[in-house]
Amino acid sequence: MNRVLYSLCGSNPARPFSPHCWKVVMALEHKGLAFEEMPRAFTAIPEIEGGATATVPLLNDNGRLVKDSFDIALYLDETYPDRPTLFGGEGGKAMARFVESYSLTVLHSAITRIAVKNIHDIIDHDDQVYFRKSREARLGMPLEEVAAARDEEISAFPAKLQPLRQMLKVQPFIGGDGPLFADYIVFGALQWLRITSGSTHLEADDPVSLWFERCLDLHQGRGRSVTAA
Amino acid sequence: MNRVLYSLCGSNPARPFSPHCWKVVMALEHKGLAFEEMPRAFTAIPEIEGGATATVPLLNDNGRLVKDSFDIALYLDETYPDRPTLFGGEGGKAMARFVESYSLTVLHSAITRIAVKNIHDIIDHDDQVYFRKSREARLGMPLEEVAAARDEEISAFPAKLQPLRQMLKVQPFIGGDGPLFADYIVFGALQWLRITSGSTHLEADDPVSLWFERCLDLHQGRGRSVTAA
Repeated sequence: MNRVLYSLCGSNPARPFSPHCWKVVMALEHKGLAFEEMPRAFTAIPEIEGGATATVPLLNDNGRLVKDSFDIALYLDETYPDRPTLFGGEGGKAMARFVESYSLTVLHSAITRIAVKNIHDIIDHDDQVYFRKSREARLGMPLEEVAAARDEEISAFPAKLQPLRQMLKVQPFIGGDGPLFADYIVFGALQWLRITSGSTHLEADDPVSLWFERCLDLHQGRGRSVTAA
Repeated sequence: MNRVLYSLCGSNPARPFSPHCWKVVMALEHKGLAFEEMPRAFTAIPEIEGGATATVPLLNDNGRLVKDSFDIALYLDETYPDRPTLFGGEGGKAMARFVESYSLTVLHSAITRIAVKNIHDIIDHDDQVYFRKSREARLGMPLEEVAAARDEEISAFPAKLQPLRQMLKVQPFIGGDGPLFADYIVFGALQWLRITSGSTHLEADDPVSLWFERCLDLHQGRGRSVTAA
């Protein structure tokens, strides 16, 4: 076995925080596939596997390189069909794309605005230069200006999870009775928020918090292995 | 064959408008099951099948009564497994619940605020009394006050479809290459808006409009059989 997952970290390699990489960590655990996680700094990504990728996650599965979290999940289900499914059939594969799109458009933009300054402060100097430049271009303002509206973003955050909260009235996971990759998609977003900003900023008795805690418990508590900031 | 779908209408029985009933119309068409649609006014619902239900849709499938749109879809897939699937497996069944929750919490509340006065104006007098009382209690204000903020709600509406818009970059339907019940869930919401308020209030070249048009084309244009208001 030679299976390596390249992920993302700041100054501390023991604290990987990328939402997309966490999706893959959970997917590999779900399939019961042993792997070594190798977190890298933003500016070290172009050096991975001799320049194989501009982004992480990148999976090296016995020499086969696969990037993009959703593509990696599809690859794992196709390559290891005898292990627990990540999608539960073709319909689940398609609808996981809707969950991904919800997470990207509704949650990621909010989390970026809440945590961008926190992320800046936990990465190395070279990464900070790259990160500030690229994020300020994307957000259209200085990071400090984004951070000034942080409390407002935090107040508005719980309402953005209303679709998940409503769904949790009828089943414990997006995958139904148990988790599927769609759960790991939303988990990845909240785990990114928790690790970088110290909290999911949800009430402890919020059904979404209870679901997130269930996800943290999965796979021998893999998600809990990195504490909140 | 004796298959009847009780649905909802205003003064004109040829213009059924309930989102939940439209989901079931499309589900029955998807399964290729012949049926007679019997639209009823709000205040006539308690008389259906000798008091069998407080809400529509209600399906009478050869004497078997089934209510609730999602439960009807599950019933159809279980009872007619040899016809085209509505869910595409167990994962799709579970994730359709997430799509339903998104539609209910994000779209339905907005559509209610846009179309509530339109709906009031197309229903019979007895229905108007019931409708005004129940909706004003739910919304916490007179219908006219809700209607006064209509333009604002319409302006905010396209952004609420961003998850679907993003997903449409990778596939033409929520079900993937073709539609599944999850598509009919969101279709039902936009069809309700279109029939009662005259428009989906989206730009014609919006990817969501193009998807909605594809849905209107399905099953011999069943959705188009009722024109916009």
